[in-house]
Amino acid sequence: MDLRSYIRDVPDFPKPGIVFKDITPLLRSHEALDYISHALAEPYKDSGITAVAAIESRGFIFGSGVARVLGAGFVPIRKPGKLPWKTRRGEYTLEYGSGILEIHDDALTADDRVLLIDDLLATGGTAACAAMLARECGATVVAAGFVIELAFLGGREKLDGTPVYALIEY
Amino acid sequence: MDLRSYIRDVPDFPKPGIVFKDITPLLRSHEALDYISHALAEPYKDSGITAVAAIESRGFIFGSGVARVLGAGFVPIRKPGKLPWKTRRGEYTLEYGSGILEIHDDALTADDRVLLIDDLLATGGTAACAAMLARECGATVVAAGFVIELAFLGGREKLDGTPVYALIEY
Repeated sequence: MDLRSYIRDVPDFPKPGIVFKDITPLLRSHEALDYISHALAEPYKDSGITAVAAIESRGFIFGSGVARVLGAGFVPIRKPGKLPWKTRRGEYTLEYGSGILEIHDDALTADDRVLLIDDLLATGGTAACAAMLARECGATVVAAGFVIELAFLGGREKLDGTPVYALIEY
Repeated sequence: MDLRSYIRDVPDFPKPGIVFKDITPLLRSHEALDYISHALAEPYKDSGITAVAAIESRGFIFGSGVARVLGAGFVPIRKPGKLPWKTRRGEYTLEYGSGILEIHDDALTADDRVLLIDDLLATGGTAACAAMLARECGATVVAAGFVIELAFLGGREKLDGTPVYALIEY
C-alpha cells in the first residue's frame, strides 16, 4: 500500500518554515489504518510482546490497533497531570524548551515486554523519554515503531540500544 | 464481560471531592479492549456508518478500534491548535470556564454518516460540541457511544436528538 499518498504536506505549521506531515487523510481510510496496525505489529508478532505503550495523542490511535493485532495490553504515556494514579515522570528536550511525559507506576512490571508506538519520529526526545519511563517501571523495551520517520533529524540515535522501525521515511 | 471490574476509582482527582474513573486497568487488558471495540460498534453495524469521530485524547484509543470493526474511517476531533489544515472550531462550557474543540473542515462531507465515540459522558458539553462540529461539516451524526456514562450528571440531555449509548453506567 502506498501510504505516502495518504500523507498531506502542510507548509508553515506549526510555525513558518516547517512542513507538517498531516496524517488525517490516512486516518480517514479504514484500509490504510488497518494496514498500519498490521504492518507495525508484523516485525514483533513472535517476540512475546505483552504491552504496547503509546504516546499521547496521535500514538493512541495507532497503538491500540497494534495492541489488538499482537494480543497485547495498551499502556498510555501521557502529558503531565492527566493520569490519575501514582505516576513516574520524565522530562525531554524540545527545540525550544522542554516537555514532560508520565506513565502510571503500576502500568508495567519486570515481566513486561513492551513495543513503543507513536505516529512520528522526529528528533527522538519524546520517544527516548517514553522508553526510559517504561524501563523505569522494570519492563523490557523490545522496539519502537513509528508510522513516519523524519530521518534527516536523526531521532533514532537518541533511542540508543532500542531497535527503531518506521513505515514511511522522509 | 464485567467491564466494571476493570475500572479503578481514584478519589480526589483531578480535584478534591471528585472520584475519577480510571480506565487504565481496562486498557491493559487486550480482551477488555477488544470487547469494547465490538460492543460499541455492534448497535450500529448495519447503519451505514462511514466515519467514526473520536474526541482527543482517550476517545482516540477506543475510536480507532470501533472504526476498524465498522470498516469506517477515523476522524480526530482535537483540542485547539493541533490540527494543521483549515478547521472548524466550537466552544463548550465546563464546570468552570470553557473549552474549545476543532475538526478539519474537509474531514467529513454531506455523504458521511458519523458515529461519535469518547471514553466518558459526563456533563455532555464536549460531546455536544463534537456532534455540532460534525454537523457543521454537513455530516449526519447517527449516534454517540461511550465506554462510561456518569448518568447522574445528565449529559445525554445536552445531545438532544442524538441517540446516546454507553457500556457502563454510574
